[in-house]
Amino acid sequence: MKMRTLYKPLASLLLLVSTVSPADTGLTDTQEQTLQTLKQQALEDDLSYQLIESLTTEVGARLVGSEGEKRSVTWAVNKMKALGFDKVWTEESDAQLWQRGDIEARISSPFPHPVAALALGNSVGTDGKTIEAEVVEFADLAALQAAPANSLNNKIAFVSYKMERHKDGHGYGKAVGARVVGASEAAKKGAVAFIMRSVGTDSNKLAHTGVSRYAEGVKKIPAVAISNPDADLLQNVLGRSQPVIFALSTSASGPSGKTTTIANVIGEVTGARTPEQLVTLGAHLDSWDVGTGAIDDGIGVGITLAAGHYLAGLPTRPDRTLRVILFAAEEVGLLGAKDYVKQHQQEMSQHVIGAEWDFGNGKIYKLEPGVNPEALPAIQSFARHLSSLGVSMASTNSAKGQSDMSALGEAGQPAVNFNPDGSDYFDYHHTRNDTLDKVNAEALKTNTAIYTMFAYFATSTTAEFRRPPQTASRQTQ
Amino acid sequence: MKMRTLYKPLASLLLLVSTVSPADTGLTDTQEQTLQTLKQQALEDDLSYQLIESLTTEVGARLVGSEGEKRSVTWAVNKMKALGFDKVWTEESDAQLWQRGDIEARISSPFPHPVAALALGNSVGTDGKTIEAEVVEFADLAALQAAPANSLNNKIAFVSYKMERHKDGHGYGKAVGARVVGASEAAKKGAVAFIMRSVGTDSNKLAHTGVSRYAEGVKKIPAVAISNPDADLLQNVLGRSQPVIFALSTSASGPSGKTTTIANVIGEVTGARTPEQLVTLGAHLDSWDVGTGAIDDGIGVGITLAAGHYLAGLPTRPDRTLRVILFAAEEVGLLGAKDYVKQHQQEMSQHVIGAEWDFGNGKIYKLEPGVNPEALPAIQSFARHLSSLGVSMASTNSAKGQSDMSALGEAGQPAVNFNPDGSDYFDYHHTRNDTLDKVNAEALKTNTAIYTMFAYFATSTTAEFRRPPQTASRQTQ
Repeated sequence: MKMRTLYKPLASLLLLVSTVSPADTGLTDTQEQTLQTLKQQALEDDLSYQLIESLTTEVGARLVGSEGEKRSVTWAVNKMKALGFDKVWTEESDAQLWQRGDIEARISSPFPHPVAALALGNSVGTDGKTIEAEVVEFADLAALQAAPANSLNNKIAFVSYKMERHKDGHGYGKAVGARVVGASEAAKKGAVAFIMRSVGTDSNKLAHTGVSRYAEGVKKIPAVAISNPDADLLQNVLGRSQPVIFALSTSASGPSGKTTTIANVIGEVTGARTPEQLVTLGAHLDSWDVGTGAIDDGIGVGITLAAGHYLAGLPTRPDRTLRVILFAAEEVGLLGAKDYVKQHQQEMSQHVIGAEWDFGNGKIYKLEPGVNPEALPAIQSFARHLSSLGVSMASTNSAKGQSDMSALGEAGQPAVNFNPDGSDYFDYHHTRNDTLDKVNAEALKTNTAIYTMFAYFATSTTAEFRRPPQTASRQTQ
Repeated sequence: MKMRTLYKPLASLLLLVSTVSPADTGLTDTQEQTLQTLKQQALEDDLSYQLIESLTTEVGARLVGSEGEKRSVTWAVNKMKALGFDKVWTEESDAQLWQRGDIEARISSPFPHPVAALALGNSVGTDGKTIEAEVVEFADLAALQAAPANSLNNKIAFVSYKMERHKDGHGYGKAVGARVVGASEAAKKGAVAFIMRSVGTDSNKLAHTGVSRYAEGVKKIPAVAISNPDADLLQNVLGRSQPVIFALSTSASGPSGKTTTIANVIGEVTGARTPEQLVTLGAHLDSWDVGTGAIDDGIGVGITLAAGHYLAGLPTRPDRTLRVILFAAEEVGLLGAKDYVKQHQQEMSQHVIGAEWDFGNGKIYKLEPGVNPEALPAIQSFARHLSSLGVSMASTNSAKGQSDMSALGEAGQPAVNFNPDGSDYFDYHHTRNDTLDKVNAEALKTNTAIYTMFAYFATSTTAEFRRPPQTASRQTQ
């Protein structure tokens, strides 16, 4: 016992001495001062808010294949140029076209009620007809999967699982499986349609959309989310122990086979000394079609563009290149990010570190690295500059990159994740309520400052974030 | 100065001594005990919640003239009978029929955006066409009224005034004028349509409906509310200093001239000694069509029916008669209440006191009487029984009756107003979000206990709430 109580503080002290000292950021004194200047500039400015206001007002919703998406690409190119990026370009590829069409949903008996519903992304429609069938409720996806074969013939499957609210958003993972595969699981049992409680933590009569996938060789049936109050109501009606008939018509296009051109929009602040070394900041430019994509991911667009602008406004360029990537088609499966990796295969080894913003509104409280362990002291020292902004550093070193950046992470790019309070993120996510008024302007300033500081630190430090080649090759064996 | 400071406490002390003592409730000791028993019963029960659940699940929306409204009358009659009321009946009259139809609203240029909108009650439609016209913004109704003649020819008037949030809901009064008369005011200046920011304190992409009126002799133009986020967006688009074109189509029926039968549903717990003396509890049974009318006014229905049930369950009937009135057509102008006064003109002088519940979800914090001053000591003593429930008594004696009860108040019925915290009432009021999940079950128990206690106190006390005849006649001279 005594030995242990003696040992622990000693070990902690040694760790502290060996890893944390201000000089360890790998920045010069002048660079340290610049870091503070950038922090103040971002905290006192509202550029990122103005960018979100502009995107949501002048463009609005940006569903893949929509007019809004096309206009957002022009908007982003123009903004990057106006904000002083050194190089701005787009990289096109193809994506499946899906169109929402109209929807009408209601409980038709024993008690008629209109229902707020949205087709899930990729859903097929009802061929101009109204599907009217008895509802069978399942507590969650697993219960649906456990239903006997043919038990849902001519029925509508309803998964009533309610997403939990958590600061780190982990309730989403437990709920979203039904959204992605529920329709095919229901179809395997004979169902004619799949409805589910929206994957969201709000209590608004507004459904949440999001992507769904059909399994190969399984009949494609309509996949629809209903709002939380309507799911409550449907459960209450089902509680009366009478057959409950639900009526659904939707003209959603399903996987049409048609394609549309998508475009990543990329802007660089070119490094002064080692321009081939790339630090990436990512966000996605596309959105779902129902709100104006302010939270998801207008905020990411605003933060990353503002960070680029602040770096571009310095008297001298940082050593490495900052590359801001506004990814296309994130919502329908990270398509832009996957295409980026494909197109940049040759230079992926020069991507020294990246960070995405795609988690909404809350203040960042944690920084989590995923880097060469030898670079940890530098990141710890950098993190100290963020402690006055409420950010602490995770004890783990396993970040893989959030959202789009996970695709670059899989291709070997080290990552830093900045984790915000996501308690209310899933109140707005993928709903009509994803609008400008939900943006927390104060948190946004702080988060913009953090990303700006990170961008400057990562492009200026002497720390090497990539794992040395031998480590990498050992990993791939 | 000294005189005054001496006098004031003395006067207060005299008032205190002369008016407040427990015995002053005008109840016997046994009745006092019954009051406590009823309080406990209501606090431990969830009957009022179960009634709201039943009404919203088995009936749902109850717009005047709709199927739901018809079914709600049957529901209410059956519930009153099942709950042990001694007499249950309906009183029919006629009301104008208005039908919502469909609506489509959007900003069409310079930046296209879909807009969440609802026709205001009574609004005319657009005759199968889409009105597409330039928007002119006004900060409030007064600014619209001040616009020069013909200045809105072929334009759409937009009142952007935003309702304030207050505990007592007084922000509503400042905002609702535009909803009621805005369309005709706009038409007088030549406008082809009237749109307004919803009268609501929420930030959901869900508009608030509510009644509007056309002035005689003025062209009837469509009257529409848009959601708060859409009003923000429209203001931001207007801020670009380019002409903004708005497109609107609605098949709302306007004042069609067609009528529909409405019905007040009335239930009595008949008094044992002075059954001709009537204590009324009121709520309205109708609702707008967009939610399920849980908050407005399912809660009132639940509270007043539960109070009646608890009194009907006592071993002996109270002295006076408790009359629970579920009014028809409150939302479109207190039509049921006005009809009640007309039909009961002969017995209005036997209405000794009444209270309505039509203000949603919050806990009651204040009791405000409007009675014969000689009955104030009894009410003050009664109010002491509520202090443990967080209720204090107002220093004024000028309550006229809330909502429907204001019509009975104008016909001479004394009133008690129970004021709840209405801070969030206008987040849900007249929107799709008026659903069961918004009901605060704990506050509901407390409020049900308070109404039950009031019903028992008012039907049992020896206090006389009506002003003596000479006072009344002096008032009418």
